[in-house]
Amino acid sequence: MSDRITPRTLKGFRDYPPEKMIPREQLVEIARRVYRSFGFRPMDTPALEHLEILTGKGSDETDKQLYRFEDHGGRSVGLRFDLTVPLARFVAQHIQDLGTPFKRYQIANVWRGENTQRGRYREFMQCDFDTIGTTSTTADIETVLVINALLEAIGFEQFTIRVNNRQVLTGLLEKLDLVDQSTAVLRALDKLPKIGAEKVAAELTSTAGATPQQADAVLQLSELTGSNAEILAQLEPLVADNETGKRGLDQLTELTEAVAAAQVPAERLKLDLSIARGLDYYTGMVVETFLDELPGIGSVCSGGRYDNLAELYSKQRHPGVGASLGLDRLLAALEELDRLADIQTSAQVFLPLFIAKRRNDYLHLATQLRAAGLDVELYPEAKKLGKQLQYADRRGFQVAVIIGEDEFAANEAQLKNLTTGESQTVALDDEALALIAEIRPLLGS
Amino acid sequence: MSDRITPRTLKGFRDYPPEKMIPREQLVEIARRVYRSFGFRPMDTPALEHLEILTGKGSDETDKQLYRFEDHGGRSVGLRFDLTVPLARFVAQHIQDLGTPFKRYQIANVWRGENTQRGRYREFMQCDFDTIGTTSTTADIETVLVINALLEAIGFEQFTIRVNNRQVLTGLLEKLDLVDQSTAVLRALDKLPKIGAEKVAAELTSTAGATPQQADAVLQLSELTGSNAEILAQLEPLVADNETGKRGLDQLTELTEAVAAAQVPAERLKLDLSIARGLDYYTGMVVETFLDELPGIGSVCSGGRYDNLAELYSKQRHPGVGASLGLDRLLAALEELDRLADIQTSAQVFLPLFIAKRRNDYLHLATQLRAAGLDVELYPEAKKLGKQLQYADRRGFQVAVIIGEDEFAANEAQLKNLTTGESQTVALDDEALALIAEIRPLLGS
Repeated sequence: MSDRITPRTLKGFRDYPPEKMIPREQLVEIARRVYRSFGFRPMDTPALEHLEILTGKGSDETDKQLYRFEDHGGRSVGLRFDLTVPLARFVAQHIQDLGTPFKRYQIANVWRGENTQRGRYREFMQCDFDTIGTTSTTADIETVLVINALLEAIGFEQFTIRVNNRQVLTGLLEKLDLVDQSTAVLRALDKLPKIGAEKVAAELTSTAGATPQQADAVLQLSELTGSNAEILAQLEPLVADNETGKRGLDQLTELTEAVAAAQVPAERLKLDLSIARGLDYYTGMVVETFLDELPGIGSVCSGGRYDNLAELYSKQRHPGVGASLGLDRLLAALEELDRLADIQTSAQVFLPLFIAKRRNDYLHLATQLRAAGLDVELYPEAKKLGKQLQYADRRGFQVAVIIGEDEFAANEAQLKNLTTGESQTVALDDEALALIAEIRPLLGS
Repeated sequence: MSDRITPRTLKGFRDYPPEKMIPREQLVEIARRVYRSFGFRPMDTPALEHLEILTGKGSDETDKQLYRFEDHGGRSVGLRFDLTVPLARFVAQHIQDLGTPFKRYQIANVWRGENTQRGRYREFMQCDFDTIGTTSTTADIETVLVINALLEAIGFEQFTIRVNNRQVLTGLLEKLDLVDQSTAVLRALDKLPKIGAEKVAAELTSTAGATPQQADAVLQLSELTGSNAEILAQLEPLVADNETGKRGLDQLTELTEAVAAAQVPAERLKLDLSIARGLDYYTGMVVETFLDELPGIGSVCSGGRYDNLAELYSKQRHPGVGASLGLDRLLAALEELDRLADIQTSAQVFLPLFIAKRRNDYLHLATQLRAAGLDVELYPEAKKLGKQLQYADRRGFQVAVIIGEDEFAANEAQLKNLTTGESQTVALDDEALALIAEIRPLLGS
């Protein structure tokens, strides 16, 4: 073959070799386990959708990034750019059969023709959970509990779940007669961390038509500080005489009490009236989650409550609440914090194939160890032991079971702890029970 | 909103609601567990590849089915139609870093613009495992052992792993001086189950240039019957004096012995010299797997040995062996055999939210049960108990923990077995230990 094709991936796309895929798979499995433990159920939708489904709700920004083309039947199609739009379509189409509350999770890839100069990838995984079909604050509370359980299960202890409720600001804007300007107000407030209070105040007066006093009142809300109890106390007069604002305040109060009752350490939940999260999708609770050790990487799990998920596809209202785990950010964080074990193998026990004519004995032993729940890799070739142990070392196996001529003759095995280098001799009984019993403690099981 | 978009999926694509996704996820998890127990490691590649990577190896058939388009940068790209081509590209690109043997699994979606009238879908999941970089028969043997372990882990006992070795036929063709015609011979033999021996013999003489005697010899090989030992004995004279054929026979002999040593029940492995599996990719062992109860659905796990995986992308030879689990066929089989439990929930314990003002007590209890490893769904609204239990019933929860005013007053819970309808009263201690102890046996844990 003379004209070989250069093996390469597309710009903005990545391969996942085992050392990248093993921690990824572990994280996804943890997420599944936690979602299930709260009764969230898996679902999936196609990668390709009718283009009109995808562009219907998208912003100009996502429209521009959409992978779109004509399929073999001349249909305009596109690759999903998030899991929310397909969920909305799915709910509009199937909710009659599904019933409510519909608690679901979906872990799947999405595609965006992003500018890769910003370090973004064009294919990445989203990991969403939602409760559809209920306006109950209990579902909001559970969203926070799931986030706490997720991060705990991944192994984090120091993180802060920052919570706001959009109704508080809406209430204040109603009182100030600025509710028609809420999009402009939110847009200005979103810039607070970047440009500071003074410039936001200027923008509030120039683009949202607020008086300087009104701009002050709005900024005062965003800048409330103190303990959760202090913030709730300061909110009280700000939303007095306004139903919407009071409802928001009540929900925040209920949330802090409920989260404590569910044994989440008090310091992990922080009311933060400055969190806005986008412009017009969320209508109630909004939540962001930061790792205390790495606040700079941004929120690792974000979401909130929405009034009407599927308005583009259904005349029925579908309220819900949910959040999305930032898988890639978390993996980057674990790597930066040096908490990603360098695991290159999926089995813990390495079995060198030492004497070629004894292959069937090795196969038999491997079967026995697997039947006892141990994961065993048998080297496929009878190479020199040193070479095989080098392979085991590079891969990070924990133990090796070495059986050469002498051991076969004496009916025993050398059990080698590859971490410490220590070896012990173990008798090989008919069912390898002694060996299994000695391996378990070396694996910490 | 007046112009609503009709919520629908593309032709040939399907949504997976929870009742379809739960068994799917279970099957994928079983496959992962089994692959890992043999030391296979996960990897992944992008859904989109440079078009030339995908069309390089594809047949006219796959080329026609390929989803292809121009991306934002004017590059010709396509959606992968299998996992073998991306693996070949991946191996050519990364094998220096990966080292050999490289044992990998990949479970991912692929896309083909198939004719949906044949009941085919345009998006489906493949579930492949391969050992790259070794010609060792041990890796062939392990492939059969993995297939056996997979089907056992899924819950099947009656299945047949049919194995052939391409070198036997190649050896015979070498002896008959027909080796240049092997593609035509294989094409004719592939039709044996459909058109019968007589017509295959006619095709062998007309298109492969065989004499009637040669056609007979080829057919005789494909039609060998008897026990594995009888087949091996009959092969002996057929491949005598030919190195290639003898190597094939030796490998089949080794395989049957090794598979027995690894405790696979003898009746599950069947030598079958008629298995060809496609035309030019496989070069050694080939394998297909049939469910004895449903032979008609075809092979549920197929694969074989290949000499040169990545010849289009690399001048280095990459031999390997692997197989692919037919996820959709297995799910269809489990459904047809009525072995798919109708599980609509991912949690087993249902906790009705009965008294609204006691929400925090329910949340506290749910946290305690989850900490004990139980999966618990709390209903989010304080609806009538009957409605909540109806929901639990429809979802297939196993137990409900019912706590109303009386129970709160008496510090106890009604534990209801939703399968039998029986209830018992359990005292609620501070850590819910008595309740947890009573729930476990109801879940069979």
